[in-house]
Amino acid sequence: MEIRGADVGFIGLGVMGLSMAGHLRKAGARLHVYTRTKDKVLAFLNEGAVWHDSPGAVAAACKAVFTMVGYPKDVEEVYFGRAGILENARPGTLIVDTTTSRPDLARKIWEEARKRGLRALDAPVSGGDLGARNATLSIMVGGAEEDFLDAKPLLEAMGKTVVRQGPAGAGQYTKMVNQIVVAGNLIGTVEALIYAEKAGLDPRTVLESISTGAAASWQLSNMVPRMLDGNFEPGFFSKHYLKDLRIAVESARSMGADLPMLALAESLFDKMVDRGYAEKGTQALYLLYKNGIPR
Amino acid sequence: MEIRGADVGFIGLGVMGLSMAGHLRKAGARLHVYTRTKDKVLAFLNEGAVWHDSPGAVAAACKAVFTMVGYPKDVEEVYFGRAGILENARPGTLIVDTTTSRPDLARKIWEEARKRGLRALDAPVSGGDLGARNATLSIMVGGAEEDFLDAKPLLEAMGKTVVRQGPAGAGQYTKMVNQIVVAGNLIGTVEALIYAEKAGLDPRTVLESISTGAAASWQLSNMVPRMLDGNFEPGFFSKHYLKDLRIAVESARSMGADLPMLALAESLFDKMVDRGYAEKGTQALYLLYKNGIPR
Repeated sequence: MEIRGADVGFIGLGVMGLSMAGHLRKAGARLHVYTRTKDKVLAFLNEGAVWHDSPGAVAAACKAVFTMVGYPKDVEEVYFGRAGILENARPGTLIVDTTTSRPDLARKIWEEARKRGLRALDAPVSGGDLGARNATLSIMVGGAEEDFLDAKPLLEAMGKTVVRQGPAGAGQYTKMVNQIVVAGNLIGTVEALIYAEKAGLDPRTVLESISTGAAASWQLSNMVPRMLDGNFEPGFFSKHYLKDLRIAVESARSMGADLPMLALAESLFDKMVDRGYAEKGTQALYLLYKNGIPR
Repeated sequence: MEIRGADVGFIGLGVMGLSMAGHLRKAGARLHVYTRTKDKVLAFLNEGAVWHDSPGAVAAACKAVFTMVGYPKDVEEVYFGRAGILENARPGTLIVDTTTSRPDLARKIWEEARKRGLRALDAPVSGGDLGARNATLSIMVGGAEEDFLDAKPLLEAMGKTVVRQGPAGAGQYTKMVNQIVVAGNLIGTVEALIYAEKAGLDPRTVLESISTGAAASWQLSNMVPRMLDGNFEPGFFSKHYLKDLRIAVESARSMGADLPMLALAESLFDKMVDRGYAEKGTQALYLLYKNGIPR
């Protein structure tokens, strides 16, 4: 699909969505938008996006519609709700959910879309607010190959690594794979840091010895300095990570996968939210350990 | 310490020790060696190393002695046993244990050495057989600063990253930190791969999407291809990793650190050894999951 001059919708203009929509506009799309709180995006509207009063109204005006909302229930609402996307999009419209959401919900959207002559992709992203701002996201796509190819120019305006992973739901499954790896890396990093401190080591000197060999990870190199600096600002909110872990646990269970580390991660992030770290970054897991993991 | 022409001992010529001792010889040391099975190192002796019949005899002939043996009990034997190093080394001798061993044992050796006018360092390594062969090991050192500086030219003949981490025991503690990080990364990688397969994804395509972002790790990039190729040859033996995890668990407990992921890792590698994977590489953890984790 040619971006320049195309009517493209974006629903959900939070930190991620706002940056992503901005890239589509810079690439020449005519943007149509809806988000829960209009007041937060007035500046964006002034730069030339068309406001609509519902997801369905956005969809009715566009050839392609992107969504980036919060939780699976929000996804259900914008797709299946009153004045939702599915009921209002014109046949042939490409609908792309970039929210990290349930794989089974992605498949349900795809099936419903198909019945209505729409083309659905699930396309969750990783790379955080920085990746969204710099258009360096990794975008993991599920859906039909031809729909993926059609959407690719738009996805490539927002991300650097854009890969089709398989049929509907495969994008969400791949994002869950990503989050499971992150869980192990993050928990390993935190436990190692706690151990190092108890042992009287200087963690920064320890990093010199271990950060480039078999222990090397993005979490180790990027999160330990933040933990040591007392910087618990959200690169990624703990409450959102808990949402992802719950989706991963639930889908793993439904597939019969026994994943004890994932179960541990979910229980730790449950406690993170209980303890009031919901709005902190995932690196605040260090604080949970520091203060003693509640039983 | 000047390597060229120095009498340097090496005790324990397994896969790691043999490569490491070779680098000392190439750098010009006169090598004195002892290992459990002389027959395995005849070629090495033919190239010019002097054989001795006990660790103590090696120590008596040298200005610096390195040890690389298997388990903490082997360390105790070569240092404290009959015809051991501590009793036979001449005052001033530098004694360096490169075995991954217990931090408290490293401190015990250091104290006993001090009483006898010897200078002890704990200097476990990471980087595996390849790192040993290519002299690219990371060597994590505990002990007195001046003894570290004296040993540095010798350590740098065997490793690329040579860092003093603190007083006696700090090298071993740092190695444990490394192993705790590895545990999280490896378990996360295995659980993610199991999830990906259950979800019908192609794991190699998944790697394209996730291996350079927040999920990036050495374990992910290096171990998934081996697992998928059915290559479970030991880069690092599962039984040796279990030894390390046990030391980490025991020392964490003695410091009052509550580390549930580390406990999970120990329990998984206990099962690895029970299931007959002791001689496989750590990546065989994938097989344990594939076959169903025993309760």
